[in-house]
Amino acid sequence: MKLAVIGVGLIGGSFALALKKARAVSHVVGVGRGAANLELALERGIIDSIATDAGDADLVLVSAPVGQYPRILASLSSSKAIITDAGSTKRDVVAAARKALGKSIARFVPGHPIAGAEKSGAAAASADLFRDRRVVLTPVKETDGDAVSKVEALWKACGARVSRMTAAEHDEVLATVSHLPHLLAFGLVHEVAKRKNSEQLFSFAAGGFRDFTRIASSHPEMWRDICIANKDVLLKEISAFSRKIEELKKLLEHGDAAALEKLFAEARQARDQWLKSSS
Amino acid sequence: MKLAVIGVGLIGGSFALALKKARAVSHVVGVGRGAANLELALERGIIDSIATDAGDADLVLVSAPVGQYPRILASLSSSKAIITDAGSTKRDVVAAARKALGKSIARFVPGHPIAGAEKSGAAAASADLFRDRRVVLTPVKETDGDAVSKVEALWKACGARVSRMTAAEHDEVLATVSHLPHLLAFGLVHEVAKRKNSEQLFSFAAGGFRDFTRIASSHPEMWRDICIANKDVLLKEISAFSRKIEELKKLLEHGDAAALEKLFAEARQARDQWLKSSS
Repeated sequence: MKLAVIGVGLIGGSFALALKKARAVSHVVGVGRGAANLELALERGIIDSIATDAGDADLVLVSAPVGQYPRILASLSSSKAIITDAGSTKRDVVAAARKALGKSIARFVPGHPIAGAEKSGAAAASADLFRDRRVVLTPVKETDGDAVSKVEALWKACGARVSRMTAAEHDEVLATVSHLPHLLAFGLVHEVAKRKNSEQLFSFAAGGFRDFTRIASSHPEMWRDICIANKDVLLKEISAFSRKIEELKKLLEHGDAAALEKLFAEARQARDQWLKSSS
Repeated sequence: MKLAVIGVGLIGGSFALALKKARAVSHVVGVGRGAANLELALERGIIDSIATDAGDADLVLVSAPVGQYPRILASLSSSKAIITDAGSTKRDVVAAARKALGKSIARFVPGHPIAGAEKSGAAAASADLFRDRRVVLTPVKETDGDAVSKVEALWKACGARVSRMTAAEHDEVLATVSHLPHLLAFGLVHEVAKRKNSEQLFSFAAGGFRDFTRIASSHPEMWRDICIANKDVLLKEISAFSRKIEELKKLLEHGDAAALEKLFAEARQARDQWLKSSS
């Protein structure tokens, strides 16, 4: 099985490494814009050759910024490969694939490995990145069933737990548990950074602040694209969270200590329950 | 030097262990409501004896919920010990001390070690908890200068970096970098937990969500008291953050990708700069 990875970064590079470790691929071609990054991927044994396109690969993983999809997918419209991707939003990816691939959309399996870090590039790739992590596939009605099964099997070979849902459902779930928290973390750090006494504020910030804002060290360009692509759902999430803040504000204004403690206790219990069930 | 710790939890227990390690105390008396916790503290060598009050201790650390301060401080009004505390808010503590101690407030050094975790109790205490952590002392005009110096020296013996500021300044700084993030984390988890599809949402939450919400596993009663004690400042912080959210919302509504990316990049840069300078 010959794999082409378009965008050999943290995700694409880790996919290649994991499939090599599982002996599920015989040759990996790396395609991308960053020559130095591709050279590093070659040195690290992540890829076996560098090319300007996917060539005669059997499977293509597109793990590049979503903004580049129209061009990348157009270059794949006449290949016979199964194509999958790792984009963090799925409705926009499906729309781009429909436009670029036409009938060949049957060969396209939209996917999203829910794994990542603030780190990026082939230097950060690891064969174990997807172990016990979730991967969501969002096939459309035209998608070939065998193609979905093949992609699912490969992600499982990487150690991932694979789910299927619609692109719309995916974008709603991720808006709540990923996109909104990222926006809030970026927002809080920006608020602190813009204060006159920001230096003093940061100097008294401790472990709680560090963990709360870890995701504010994420890639600005990538998160710009995610937020814009999912903006309708994200705006609804922001409104829902603003209502929650208003609720908290009212409890504080009324000095309603009992209700405040109840809300905190319910949140703690829900979180602890989640950690227990996910470990 | 005989130390009495009223409330032998994570903070009080760690203070005792650190001072024993530094050979700064000869005997530690533990006072508290939880008999089992005190027995454990005795077994672990955190305290040397259990008592119902501070007795003839030279120094008393009050590390109990702020709601118990009036009773605890009243019991110390006729002792000659230097008294300090570890409360997370300081204006309310100073007010309680004025009321309970009268002129003896000269012997009271309000303090706040900015160290903690979701863990609590003597079981979690560690001699190294305060190493390189910040401790803020907020003496008032009546506070005896020698008492402040003595408390400062003891925290330094624990490995902490000690700062002085007014109680009002302390409460403002902590509202921004600690109380607000806690409220936001509790709020987000509560929002997710109350959704009809909360099980699905939690099951697709990943490392970013886990770290963002770590502080939502904090102690509900303690955080209720902190929020209520500092509610005037915290309400201002909530309003400021709501304005930041409105700013983000407008950028999204207008699809202003460039401004969104700029804001994210500024936040990331500020956070990375902070991590660099604090490491």
